[in-house]
Amino acid sequence: MSARAAIVVTGTELLGGRVSDRNGPWLADRLGELGVDLAHVTIVGDRAEDMLAALEWCAARDVGLVVTSGGLGPTADDLTAEVVGRFCGREMVLDEALEERIAEILRPLRNRWPGLSGETIRASNRKQAVVPVGATVLEPVGTAPGLVVPPAEGRTGPTVVVLPGPPRELRALWAVAVQTEAFERAIVGRTVYEQRMLRLYGLPESQIVETLRAAEAAGVDMGAIEITTCVHRSELEVVTRYEVGNADVYRAFEAVVRERHPDTLYSEDGSSIDDQVVALLVEQGLSVAVAESCTGGLVAARLTERPGSSAYVLGGIVAYSNEVKEALVGVPQATLVEYGAVSSETALALADGARSRLGADLGIGVTGIAGPDGGSEEKPVGTVWVAVSARDGGRIVRQTRLPGNRAEIRDRSTTLALHLLRRLLLGERDAASTGASAAAP
Amino acid sequence: MSARAAIVVTGTELLGGRVSDRNGPWLADRLGELGVDLAHVTIVGDRAEDMLAALEWCAARDVGLVVTSGGLGPTADDLTAEVVGRFCGREMVLDEALEERIAEILRPLRNRWPGLSGETIRASNRKQAVVPVGATVLEPVGTAPGLVVPPAEGRTGPTVVVLPGPPRELRALWAVAVQTEAFERAIVGRTVYEQRMLRLYGLPESQIVETLRAAEAAGVDMGAIEITTCVHRSELEVVTRYEVGNADVYRAFEAVVRERHPDTLYSEDGSSIDDQVVALLVEQGLSVAVAESCTGGLVAARLTERPGSSAYVLGGIVAYSNEVKEALVGVPQATLVEYGAVSSETALALADGARSRLGADLGIGVTGIAGPDGGSEEKPVGTVWVAVSARDGGRIVRQTRLPGNRAEIRDRSTTLALHLLRRLLLGERDAASTGASAAAP
Repeated sequence: MSARAAIVVTGTELLGGRVSDRNGPWLADRLGELGVDLAHVTIVGDRAEDMLAALEWCAARDVGLVVTSGGLGPTADDLTAEVVGRFCGREMVLDEALEERIAEILRPLRNRWPGLSGETIRASNRKQAVVPVGATVLEPVGTAPGLVVPPAEGRTGPTVVVLPGPPRELRALWAVAVQTEAFERAIVGRTVYEQRMLRLYGLPESQIVETLRAAEAAGVDMGAIEITTCVHRSELEVVTRYEVGNADVYRAFEAVVRERHPDTLYSEDGSSIDDQVVALLVEQGLSVAVAESCTGGLVAARLTERPGSSAYVLGGIVAYSNEVKEALVGVPQATLVEYGAVSSETALALADGARSRLGADLGIGVTGIAGPDGGSEEKPVGTVWVAVSARDGGRIVRQTRLPGNRAEIRDRSTTLALHLLRRLLLGERDAASTGASAAAP
Repeated sequence: MSARAAIVVTGTELLGGRVSDRNGPWLADRLGELGVDLAHVTIVGDRAEDMLAALEWCAARDVGLVVTSGGLGPTADDLTAEVVGRFCGREMVLDEALEERIAEILRPLRNRWPGLSGETIRASNRKQAVVPVGATVLEPVGTAPGLVVPPAEGRTGPTVVVLPGPPRELRALWAVAVQTEAFERAIVGRTVYEQRMLRLYGLPESQIVETLRAAEAAGVDMGAIEITTCVHRSELEVVTRYEVGNADVYRAFEAVVRERHPDTLYSEDGSSIDDQVVALLVEQGLSVAVAESCTGGLVAARLTERPGSSAYVLGGIVAYSNEVKEALVGVPQATLVEYGAVSSETALALADGARSRLGADLGIGVTGIAGPDGGSEEKPVGTVWVAVSARDGGRIVRQTRLPGNRAEIRDRSTTLALHLLRRLLLGERDAASTGASAAAP
């Protein structure tokens, strides 16, 4: 068997379109880190026949390791353990010690939801303790145990790692699964890869295509490294995977990108704009505050995503109405009247107002037209101004016209705000402030 | 061929784990609306061999319609059209008129990115105009045309709808694809289903399992309806699909749910909590403002997600530090000192302060410990207070202990805030205000 892996996600609700699978991408990432090639991800409903077909397809594609997610719950449509047992040629048996341990876990639940009958709980408890003979049991984090199931004696085929659907349980049990002997055996023979990511902001994806060609023309052995590019949250990510021996090739490629895109390449170590902004804020001991209009709280929400963000985020004002812009942020009425709420002057006044009203070192101001209504010929939907300002009077203001729908425009505006904040933190300043931009000190 | 469908999503970046596929769930939803059963979703990398294997697996699983997403771009790893042509037994030809139309589309791009060479553009233009003979071409919305490709004369197998990866383009071309004759032919024989959704808030998923059993015991023919339950954004969604003739069975089932869960069933028509809050605000002509701490802007961001939200959202204050809570929201220092920043008194003061400082009819206050740090024995991580208040003094305050990580706690707090706002809008009030909760008027 090869070291190629596949992921089989089960859940009829995932085929209904209302819920997106989050486990597949997470597992894909983990497999990549282990240097295990991922052949495909399949999402099937909670039907034994479909699940079995998906597993058999994995075997037909010469996959050595299959990771499944979901279908370990207490209901009748939770079939994964049984289907995997059949696929691996192993009988199902009740593990009584496991049954007792699950009962232990369910006891507090029983007190919390007295409406649940003892009968219901006992039945689901027992069901979850029936496992394929010879499988390695991964102790439950929720109520469902995970499994590592190699093919039965004398059979060929992939080893199957069976994990529960709730992301927290899946992640915890994955950590246990990779430590098992059965898992190790299944991925023997994998190639060890290095993976690196470059991030660029403000470069169209098609330009990187030209750069790949330029690198090849410059003599970089592009066949020795595997490059994937994609646009994520309006940033261009260039991910390169290569065998350890080809690190020199990668360095040569990286040098070409650096030379061709000095302004847009902002991360050579895969760090995100959020990582960089947080590191700079902490390093410089500075605090930040936001006054935002069209982003409606998203800039503040993103800045407070990380644990410990209270060390550098004081807060923000969502100044959706003009009254709030005036009263709470201190945007002068004259600015709103003369230049309009969507203008560089208002963006600056928002940044300055956020800073002074919240007593922060740095201020961010965002104003724009997220649409779908409210656009004009002069200021169409997607017109957004972002300003950042510092105590010393230094500031950067940018106007942009963002493509996309309302949610995309809001999200991209947020990303732009972080990029301007990074530039400000790195000491960049707009050459001259316009006289018209005065606001709170 | 049956009316079963499958989705094949291509993109090596989707196997890398950094990017989640958004097209699969969206297409799944559309297929469900059409009454086309979805057999599975497969995600494969940009390798001809893997793509072809995925298509062949669809054929083996007796699928009549395959929808592909991605792989229509200008780069060499964009192979979908060619692979699908081969799979359907159709030769590839250059469609010169299409080439010309794509050139027309690329012209402005060329001006926008003068760095792109004419050669690059011409080559990708030509590549995107090479299509399988006999396919129906869907005019590009971006630069890539979509395709509807039936099996070649004399062959059996599924019809393949080929759509570009960018969600906006995919969605626009899907609308065109379903109108084509080739598409209609591929889904002939589908059953027409009705689909209904109930939403419950505050009910554990295991209790609905008992309710399904209770409905069966009460004589509801549960075999005649297909029920999927799932938890989404801390709400329980119960989706039922049934053939049109079984509407009575569904109504009987719905009555059982209504009777057993009067407090937690809040939506019988599938409307989300967001839908309901917006409708109530608009209907009653009321405005809302937020002062939030641990959610860091997420409540404001969610309230401003919809077009036209400026009609009822005035804005908010992200009061992350105590200084901001005092200075901007007017939370009395005594309240913060006596009860702490995470307390019902502070939540109420935030709600009242938001209302009075922003001049809104209704106020929302959120404060809590999103973790992972900052918890104590008395107030562990996940402890969150949410308060809503109205001009007339009416208010609702709730304490909760939310499970999950930081992001989940923040998201669930946001959902709770919307549910309390809904209750307030429906006239519910806490019986008596505690004397200690005084804050801004």
